[in-house]
Amino acid sequence: MSTAALEQLHEHQRQTRVLASIGSCLYWDQTTAMPPAGAAWRGEQLAWVAQQVHNRQTSPHHGELLAAAEDSLSQLPPEQKEDWQQNLALLRLEYQRQCCLDPALVNALAEAQARGYSLWQEAKASQDFSIFAPALEELIRLRLEQVCQLAETRSPWETLAQPFEPHISHRRLGELFTPLRQRLPHMVERVRSTSHPAQPPWTMSRQVQHNLCGQLLEHWGFDRRRCVLATSPHPFSTTMGPQDFRITNRTLTHQPLSAFLATAHEWGHSLYEQGLPGEDSPWFGWPLAEATSMGVHESQSLFWENRLARSRAFSQVWARRFAQAAGAAPWGDEDGLWVAMNPLEPGLTRVEAGELSYCLHVLLRYELETDLLEHRLPVAELPERWCVLMEHYLGVTPSNVSEGCLQDVHWSEGLFGYFPSYALGHLISAQLAEAMEADIGPMEAHVAAGEEHRLLAWLRLHVHPLGRRVNGEQLVQKVTGRSLSAEPFLHYLELKLEQLLTIRTAAQHR
Amino acid sequence: MSTAALEQLHEHQRQTRVLASIGSCLYWDQTTAMPPAGAAWRGEQLAWVAQQVHNRQTSPHHGELLAAAEDSLSQLPPEQKEDWQQNLALLRLEYQRQCCLDPALVNALAEAQARGYSLWQEAKASQDFSIFAPALEELIRLRLEQVCQLAETRSPWETLAQPFEPHISHRRLGELFTPLRQRLPHMVERVRSTSHPAQPPWTMSRQVQHNLCGQLLEHWGFDRRRCVLATSPHPFSTTMGPQDFRITNRTLTHQPLSAFLATAHEWGHSLYEQGLPGEDSPWFGWPLAEATSMGVHESQSLFWENRLARSRAFSQVWARRFAQAAGAAPWGDEDGLWVAMNPLEPGLTRVEAGELSYCLHVLLRYELETDLLEHRLPVAELPERWCVLMEHYLGVTPSNVSEGCLQDVHWSEGLFGYFPSYALGHLISAQLAEAMEADIGPMEAHVAAGEEHRLLAWLRLHVHPLGRRVNGEQLVQKVTGRSLSAEPFLHYLELKLEQLLTIRTAAQHR
Repeated sequence: MSTAALEQLHEHQRQTRVLASIGSCLYWDQTTAMPPAGAAWRGEQLAWVAQQVHNRQTSPHHGELLAAAEDSLSQLPPEQKEDWQQNLALLRLEYQRQCCLDPALVNALAEAQARGYSLWQEAKASQDFSIFAPALEELIRLRLEQVCQLAETRSPWETLAQPFEPHISHRRLGELFTPLRQRLPHMVERVRSTSHPAQPPWTMSRQVQHNLCGQLLEHWGFDRRRCVLATSPHPFSTTMGPQDFRITNRTLTHQPLSAFLATAHEWGHSLYEQGLPGEDSPWFGWPLAEATSMGVHESQSLFWENRLARSRAFSQVWARRFAQAAGAAPWGDEDGLWVAMNPLEPGLTRVEAGELSYCLHVLLRYELETDLLEHRLPVAELPERWCVLMEHYLGVTPSNVSEGCLQDVHWSEGLFGYFPSYALGHLISAQLAEAMEADIGPMEAHVAAGEEHRLLAWLRLHVHPLGRRVNGEQLVQKVTGRSLSAEPFLHYLELKLEQLLTIRTAAQHR
Repeated sequence: MSTAALEQLHEHQRQTRVLASIGSCLYWDQTTAMPPAGAAWRGEQLAWVAQQVHNRQTSPHHGELLAAAEDSLSQLPPEQKEDWQQNLALLRLEYQRQCCLDPALVNALAEAQARGYSLWQEAKASQDFSIFAPALEELIRLRLEQVCQLAETRSPWETLAQPFEPHISHRRLGELFTPLRQRLPHMVERVRSTSHPAQPPWTMSRQVQHNLCGQLLEHWGFDRRRCVLATSPHPFSTTMGPQDFRITNRTLTHQPLSAFLATAHEWGHSLYEQGLPGEDSPWFGWPLAEATSMGVHESQSLFWENRLARSRAFSQVWARRFAQAAGAAPWGDEDGLWVAMNPLEPGLTRVEAGELSYCLHVLLRYELETDLLEHRLPVAELPERWCVLMEHYLGVTPSNVSEGCLQDVHWSEGLFGYFPSYALGHLISAQLAEAMEADIGPMEAHVAAGEEHRLLAWLRLHVHPLGRRVNGEQLVQKVTGRSLSAEPFLHYLELKLEQLLTIRTAAQHR
């Protein structure tokens, strides 16, 4: 049952959602179709939508609907109360946050994001940080203004990270990331000290890559009636409506597995969105039907990318398909493909990184954005500071800014506080995988049988439907019975590293 | 100079334009990218935007700004007055029209259009008119409701046609179309009575067609920084912002020239839009910077499609490029390509029709939509009535509804009153071409020299910048010094027909 006040609030929420999803469509078009000269006008459109969403979310009318709904909670049967309280508390928090923000700031941020994205593209293409630097400065200035207006009892970085990871703090990230800082460098060192055959570089045409991505998506349940795959400079996943799920990838001939793994990754995001309470659920359109945190979101994308597509069993099944599509097998045998899927040497690019170095890329970005926001690191010093930290964490140095601090899209859109979610995603994915295996047996056996749908069914039962009933850490506690920790991830990674090094050594001695 | 009141109105207009262009983006995405199941949600988004545009256009605030601007006209220098009066009169007319409409109707129409488009696609794919019929009935009902609310001293069809062709009437169309009704059937009969060699059917792969379309656009000045080409079931052109021009086509292997000619057509539309007063003009954002009528718009698309791409000189230049791209020349020599570009035998499909039968396709649709709107032709009888008229006008009968009354997108989106603009476009194009040739010499000589840019320069000087200073017929009077008539078109067509028949006969006797 529901009350009249709840129904009125629901209709208001639904309209806000329709409006916000228009912004998603403008963004999708901007990155997949729009010609470059369209950027200025698109900025005005996005700013207008952001302004309208903000107006709705902060309108006295919304406040009245929310208060009436809160008052009506006492009319609900006891067994429904807890969910509704959580639901309305999330709306109340969001309402309070939005009401703190000056509409002029919301507008300026939306315009700065569009301009930032456009200039970032230009700067990256011409390897010239100075093109992007003023836009980044402006974004930081506006975000700090936002922090002032929000006036939370948190640091600036923590405040900006809340929408991505509710309740996250520097302290808790310190606890979770310390074991990574302690043990990952040893593992990287172990790789360095193990000699291995130089892998001759190989390529795969864009068409072959498209073909394999298509096969993967088909195998993993891609439904053309509800889903779309397109191309954009930076792969992403977005939900445009309750029956409209989109992902993008991009093919690079000299990184022949990049598009394939990115497709697995983005499809994992999309599967989570598809598994949230949908139009047939009473929670559709309410916060309880939304994704709970970016860390959980990333845990789902990383599950499909790393735990499945990068598993040994997967390469055993797919080596033949790869060879058929490519008309050759320059990677060698099944284990050769597995080794190629799992680069161990640290590289320059986060999105191409294997599981071993990925979290180190994240630690670097977390440190830099905290410095930019909280310790007044001048924007002009970012490229050099990036190089210093790359050398420190990963022992490699970019030769230009495009493979350095311009490699990621996030900062160009003013997204600060997001990167740690990627590392949390690794930890959550590993801990959920342990619980899944305890329940339905080894994942690799299901992959070997081509029955990944059984793994999806488990996620659809235990993880996806929870929505925002729980935050990221509560979800892990609820599903696995333990607090989140780095242990399952590091344990899994150490075992996998041994296997991979053994194979590489064997290949060398053959 | 401008007045403060004019500047305030301008800013309001600009924001309305930003908002309306969001609708264009949603529509573009719907037809080029969206998965089918996204249709319902997209309908809600489009309805929301339409409602917002309507709210802005009918708001008391807009009315006040407009009245203040009208009052301020007396402050303008005399030489600026006429343009400003025309400008504000167009806004006033639009404001009055919009104020007549009930917001609930505007909303219902937007939703019915999205639903109609979706069901039309489904009906067309499954050759089942009954899937689409209820949506068409609803669209007609809503359009007649709109006619009632507008309460103009015009017939229902005339009222709905005004936005496409200002000041058009059944009477004037009767005058212009009578010579077509009288002389085109004789020409069709002349083709029938002339025996000709059966052209063996030939195909061209999608990739070859894409390649040729790309070559054409490059030759005709397609600028990737401002322009986009994509694929949609029904080719169209749209302007998303002042620096963002988009066209679509679609390739059909068994209609090897279809995509090429559609590309020429849509690019002609886009060139007109690109030639209207832009951001550097004081009229940008005002009605005077807008396209004046769909007839004029079609005259520009038909100019590039028929007068250029279907000219003999064009085939002489392009036959070699076609042969290189296709790796063969199943059409024969240069004149063989020209004959293939200009089918004379009447067919079932409007968008594939040559110049000879095109206007007959339009007369049929004009008659049918007048019957649906003004003479209570039941929707259920449309498929049969379509077949009767096809037999009457063109001597051919569709074998299913998908190549019959479901072939065009227009009615699925509730566009009634649009079709005659296509025929007017043929007449306007021919009359403008006569004036152009009197000025800069034979067009075919410029095409032969690969200098189509000289023709574009003439249009950019004499036609495109006029915007809505003049309506369609006034434009023709201004540019050619004569009233619009069917004579230039029929004269041109008769000459071309003789040439084509001579070549076909010669080919037969070889």
